[in-house]
Amino acid sequence: MEDRAVPDSGTGDTVAAIGEFGLIRAITANRTQPSTTLLGPGDDAAVVAAPDGRVVVSTDMLVHGVHFRLDWSTPEQVGRKAAAVNLADIAAMGAVPTALVVGIGCPADTRRAVLTELADGVAAEAARAHAGVVGGDLVRADELVISITALGDLGGRPPVSRSGARPGDIVAVCGRLGWAAAGLAVLGRGFRSPVGVVGAQRSPEPPYEAGPAAAVAGATAMIDVSDGLLADLGHLAEASEVGIDIRTDLLDVPQKLTDVGTALGADPLHWVLTGGEDHALAATFPSYTDLPAGWVRIGTVLMPDTGVTVDGVPYEHETGWEHWR
Amino acid sequence: MEDRAVPDSGTGDTVAAIGEFGLIRAITANRTQPSTTLLGPGDDAAVVAAPDGRVVVSTDMLVHGVHFRLDWSTPEQVGRKAAAVNLADIAAMGAVPTALVVGIGCPADTRRAVLTELADGVAAEAARAHAGVVGGDLVRADELVISITALGDLGGRPPVSRSGARPGDIVAVCGRLGWAAAGLAVLGRGFRSPVGVVGAQRSPEPPYEAGPAAAVAGATAMIDVSDGLLADLGHLAEASEVGIDIRTDLLDVPQKLTDVGTALGADPLHWVLTGGEDHALAATFPSYTDLPAGWVRIGTVLMPDTGVTVDGVPYEHETGWEHWR
Repeated sequence: MEDRAVPDSGTGDTVAAIGEFGLIRAITANRTQPSTTLLGPGDDAAVVAAPDGRVVVSTDMLVHGVHFRLDWSTPEQVGRKAAAVNLADIAAMGAVPTALVVGIGCPADTRRAVLTELADGVAAEAARAHAGVVGGDLVRADELVISITALGDLGGRPPVSRSGARPGDIVAVCGRLGWAAAGLAVLGRGFRSPVGVVGAQRSPEPPYEAGPAAAVAGATAMIDVSDGLLADLGHLAEASEVGIDIRTDLLDVPQKLTDVGTALGADPLHWVLTGGEDHALAATFPSYTDLPAGWVRIGTVLMPDTGVTVDGVPYEHETGWEHWR
Repeated sequence: MEDRAVPDSGTGDTVAAIGEFGLIRAITANRTQPSTTLLGPGDDAAVVAAPDGRVVVSTDMLVHGVHFRLDWSTPEQVGRKAAAVNLADIAAMGAVPTALVVGIGCPADTRRAVLTELADGVAAEAARAHAGVVGGDLVRADELVISITALGDLGGRPPVSRSGARPGDIVAVCGRLGWAAAGLAVLGRGFRSPVGVVGAQRSPEPPYEAGPAAAVAGATAMIDVSDGLLADLGHLAEASEVGIDIRTDLLDVPQKLTDVGTALGADPLHWVLTGGEDHALAATFPSYTDLPAGWVRIGTVLMPDTGVTVDGVPYEHETGWEHWR
């Protein structure tokens, strides 16, 4: 890491004028650190508590024009989103997030305010998950790239992988589904409202505490819904070697999505089933489980080789996306 | 992370043709994992042993054209370098590296072989440090960007920060100094040899085990030499609020650097004092210390406000660099 403490040596308003070290100090200085941050930014590396004796780690890279657009989102919203997608991966293992490190690549003419607001967004979302921003790196690049790695602690529990679902288990979700997809449809047509769905696209609000709660309740498998409910349940079903059936009468289609769907001539249920980027959590539980607060049953785990079905039949639409398709 | 196990679905030779999931699987599959990897690639997050109850974490981003050039280095050398700069930061805290996660952004027309060779290089360097490559992310970007986060374990020792040096301490280094700078000078003039210095520029070989060894021997402060010996000792001196004097009669200027300097009309001592990217380790030790194997005394810690001097006087040249200067 290169977050050394040396003096600012420029007065301009771009990264080039401020200099790498000064800007890193501006981004990392005076951030409140949780008790898990044992040694924060400013040295070769940070030190984070790992009381469990194991550490959960996940990394995601976000690129301007691919994962976010600064004409659609503020830098603060982009920072929140970049942190959220990583923190959600930690929660999806049943772990409690503890820390983030943040790598940023940006053009030399990037305004200082873009980077400080981006850093503010990362810090705000990390704080929502009670995690520290413990270090980072800032480098020159032709386009804005944000790479975050999140750490978490399992609190003595086994990690909840994707591979533990068994036939007969309950399938349940916690968090929003379809909101970000509806927001993307709205933004793609040049609108800026309704605020609810547009805000969901700009920065998701994953239910971090629902991950460890599901683990405590005995979840057999869990996944972060990043690509879409059916796509991600497909990953879980494949890893667990089971089938899954979703029942649409159990799926909540919020009035807001119905309204947007009516306005745009789109099916809101399709957004709920296939929309990514909300970072809800999906998990399976033994059939006798009293689901933790916020978790809603949406289906059942079936025998292998039945795939993922909706009301008993395959869903005949695109179910997710890859970056290069 | 998005390292899910789904089938390859293309036969072309570019990232776009192969698809994200297939390529991630190709990069992470069948890698040997050390015993510290408790849950490897393929889930939302990985799980790594942290027996100390604390985890050391550092992140660095490398950008094509800024930190490496594919016309100067092979993808395998770039992968080695990207891993090395991060692993060296872990060693510089006195910790033993345990794991890496790797984010890669690249254009859709990037050849599959570039990415698999890059991944091979990351894995090879990680193996040299006995660390696992436990997860990653692969996304579309306009230019090749590699972001690595390294984790490490302190084995019950306090972290060796930059701030513990005391007047009277020995200043010592372990590893190469000036080799990468000499290599850069050679490459910059269109030459491809001598191999020794050019190879040092393409992929450094930090002395990972020297970091924990220094901690065990009682190092009071330590830093990874990434920007240049004088620049990085300056960071250490500032953090420790001390001065440092380097004695050139104690500095080894290898014959190879002298030869290259003669050929190019350059001062090899300048490379040793200011050349970055070799990722040697520099540390301070109490004056009575028997230095561990590989460590060589090069100077002394002085009273505050004397700055970093060479043979008692300030060094009147550029002492390091920032990316935007």
